[in-house]
Amino acid sequence: MNNKKQNILIIGAGLCGSLLALRLGQRGYNVTVYEMRPDLRRTDISAGRSINLAFSDRGNKAIKLVGLEQKVKELCIPMNGRMIHDKEGNTFLSNYSGRDYEYINSISRGELNSLLLTEAEKHDNVTIHFNKKCKSVDFENTTAHFQDYTTKDEFIEDADAIIATDGAGSALRKSYYLGKKFLFSFSQNYLTHGYKELSILPTENGDYKTYKNALHIWPRGDFMVIALPNLDGSFTVTLFLSFAEGEYNFNNLTTPEIVTEFFTKEFPDALELMPNLVEDFFENPTAPLGTVKCSPWHYKGNTLLMGDSAHAIVPFYGQGMNASFEDVVEFDQVLDTHKDADWDTIFTTYEKTRKKDTDAIADLAIDNFHEMKDHVGQAIFQEKRKIEMALEKEFPEDYSSKYSLVTFNENIGYREAMLRGRAQDKAILNMLADGVISIADDLKDILDKVKTETEAILEDDKIAGLS
Amino acid sequence: MNNKKQNILIIGAGLCGSLLALRLGQRGYNVTVYEMRPDLRRTDISAGRSINLAFSDRGNKAIKLVGLEQKVKELCIPMNGRMIHDKEGNTFLSNYSGRDYEYINSISRGELNSLLLTEAEKHDNVTIHFNKKCKSVDFENTTAHFQDYTTKDEFIEDADAIIATDGAGSALRKSYYLGKKFLFSFSQNYLTHGYKELSILPTENGDYKTYKNALHIWPRGDFMVIALPNLDGSFTVTLFLSFAEGEYNFNNLTTPEIVTEFFTKEFPDALELMPNLVEDFFENPTAPLGTVKCSPWHYKGNTLLMGDSAHAIVPFYGQGMNASFEDVVEFDQVLDTHKDADWDTIFTTYEKTRKKDTDAIADLAIDNFHEMKDHVGQAIFQEKRKIEMALEKEFPEDYSSKYSLVTFNENIGYREAMLRGRAQDKAILNMLADGVISIADDLKDILDKVKTETEAILEDDKIAGLS
Repeated sequence: MNNKKQNILIIGAGLCGSLLALRLGQRGYNVTVYEMRPDLRRTDISAGRSINLAFSDRGNKAIKLVGLEQKVKELCIPMNGRMIHDKEGNTFLSNYSGRDYEYINSISRGELNSLLLTEAEKHDNVTIHFNKKCKSVDFENTTAHFQDYTTKDEFIEDADAIIATDGAGSALRKSYYLGKKFLFSFSQNYLTHGYKELSILPTENGDYKTYKNALHIWPRGDFMVIALPNLDGSFTVTLFLSFAEGEYNFNNLTTPEIVTEFFTKEFPDALELMPNLVEDFFENPTAPLGTVKCSPWHYKGNTLLMGDSAHAIVPFYGQGMNASFEDVVEFDQVLDTHKDADWDTIFTTYEKTRKKDTDAIADLAIDNFHEMKDHVGQAIFQEKRKIEMALEKEFPEDYSSKYSLVTFNENIGYREAMLRGRAQDKAILNMLADGVISIADDLKDILDKVKTETEAILEDDKIAGLS
Repeated sequence: MNNKKQNILIIGAGLCGSLLALRLGQRGYNVTVYEMRPDLRRTDISAGRSINLAFSDRGNKAIKLVGLEQKVKELCIPMNGRMIHDKEGNTFLSNYSGRDYEYINSISRGELNSLLLTEAEKHDNVTIHFNKKCKSVDFENTTAHFQDYTTKDEFIEDADAIIATDGAGSALRKSYYLGKKFLFSFSQNYLTHGYKELSILPTENGDYKTYKNALHIWPRGDFMVIALPNLDGSFTVTLFLSFAEGEYNFNNLTTPEIVTEFFTKEFPDALELMPNLVEDFFENPTAPLGTVKCSPWHYKGNTLLMGDSAHAIVPFYGQGMNASFEDVVEFDQVLDTHKDADWDTIFTTYEKTRKKDTDAIADLAIDNFHEMKDHVGQAIFQEKRKIEMALEKEFPEDYSSKYSLVTFNENIGYREAMLRGRAQDKAILNMLADGVISIADDLKDILDKVKTETEAILEDDKIAGLS
């Protein structure tokens, strides 16, 4: 496959598809991209999709790969930690890491996507078409069936290989499922909770109404509100709440009065920042939160799922975009190490190395749902975080919390981060519960005990065949 | 809902559907059952479905409930343990329990199903129709759409409530999935392995060619053969093998020569018992092994999934039929405890108590796939089993292995059996690996250590939020 003039068809020009188009364009392939939506550089199509996202080291590794680190940095607002708001309006900042240089970023989905599209189109060998919806993929013949939204015309495109980056509702994945030509393992799992976007607008002077450089959380056990800053001084706010359970839920928040009552009771300091609450609440849709896993991602050397189409996850680890960007990095590495291989070998190798990690981040994201809405408000978890912050600060080379392993250690796969991170959490929580360690102890002692206990936990699981 | 004259429509007259029809008939409901296949009491329709099954205490609890214990016992062949065959043809028997009165049974699917159909039809208020395939269910209107296989006529039936016991390919589950009227979590996961049925025929005198009262296993790490006895002196043999991986797999076992070569090399003593191997191999289909989970099972008080339609599992714990029968017992208990409730309340209560347990047996069945094909041949697992047998024999009231908890303790739910059973396994394997216990130790000492360590493991997981 030395012939770089091969034709690659990419379905979907969202974050993953536009980055992939750019990278494959840089590598010399003939890349054609079809996107169902209009060009977001010319039309406002934010409705229904989250406006801002958390961007961190795994995503940045991909951005470095395509040479856009500086341009992307200009779009970023650093968030150093979680600003936790209790019911009385008290706040405290819980840093994401004990190392000052480790933080996550709030970034606008639209701005980032626009940049990637523009950079991809700078390559003569990359063409992007908008308003063309993929209806199905004939994976036996490597062709895709599209409809033009404007003219309603339908047409078929073929290619040497088709890569679908068309998100959680992927047309290719649906064709795999409905085709029944091979054993296709597939799962869609919804949380009992949904979400709704709200907003904190800037002050009249365009300033931020609350602390800018944090991800704000109002954890309430069974539900929560979060807020991420935007460059224009506003915050995008998201309410995560059960559809049907609890005293207040999406099914019964049906009038302005009851919505206001709910926020007055549970989030009084947030309500003060949101005079526009009721309008937002009834204008914006309530959306479900789902996880999609499937296997195989590829059919022979013909077609491949990448990004959310292969592994849609819930947003609670801030890793959805980062995982999709990391897909492109991993795929690029397989292209490097398999220069003369056919697409079947490349797709097989990519899936084999990648799937265990995307399965892991899907599970971690669900864990973090419970951590954010509930655990962050509990004393023992707060004590654990304090110890971990201190360890990371004092021994920056020797300790990384689960959060750091997942978020700031882009050279460790998600699965390894999950296994080690969970074992560390278990070690610290149990040693705290048993009085074996306390925050007042010598830090070096704590570090040694945590390391020893973590290894013991990993070893015990291994002997029992659990990892 | 005191009015017992309600009309219940059951889709599917397999093992679960016919037992449910019998029980609801006994309770006084008007029950109508539609089955897509012909009446198996008049036609041989065994092809493609397993001929015999493992029947144990959870299934027997249901059989007792409907008063058929004695009749079913006559169909059973007790299997006291696993007869393990190594490559050299050496065998050893590993009992399922240290308690003599705990064993599983080989039973003919067809005989048991026939008995249940006949008993159900003894009730005037139960009617069973054959050759009527359900094509879809309108769960909003509580109606089902059928087609008569013989006449090709299509018709609609309505009822006060519809319960689908139509197996892994359920029409109701498909209607839930395709209907997109509510958030339906769903997964289908295939193993990399498939299976094929073979047979060991009786001797000319009608005797068993190998030991009758065991489940025979030829574990080979990545694949295995098993055999269960039938009343006529034959054994039903099943080969579990990867579709595509390993030196020999279903994709490359394409000629009589290579099939014979494979069995000569790997299962020489089994081959001796199967002069009919090649004919069986090429006559019988190769089938996939899948797990199905979904939620919700019910739509309001209109429709409910039960048995394999709600939770299809792989066969390695011998619990598929037992779990479906236990569904009927649990449903019956909810009817007892909610005498005046509407169907919505009954279905909701049933799913809430039952789903955690069917999820657990699905996971346990996959664990046992690895245990049967691989672990049973490893020294440390054999040592663990020896210790557990001794503990069960010496302290019958105080110790039950994971296998016993799952198989012989019908008053403990699958989920509790899984959590406790896995913790015990982990405790014993780690104490063996660390030299803390050995088979030569005093049994009471071992018991105390296992109990203490098991509790510690459960407690550690609880503190870490892992259970």
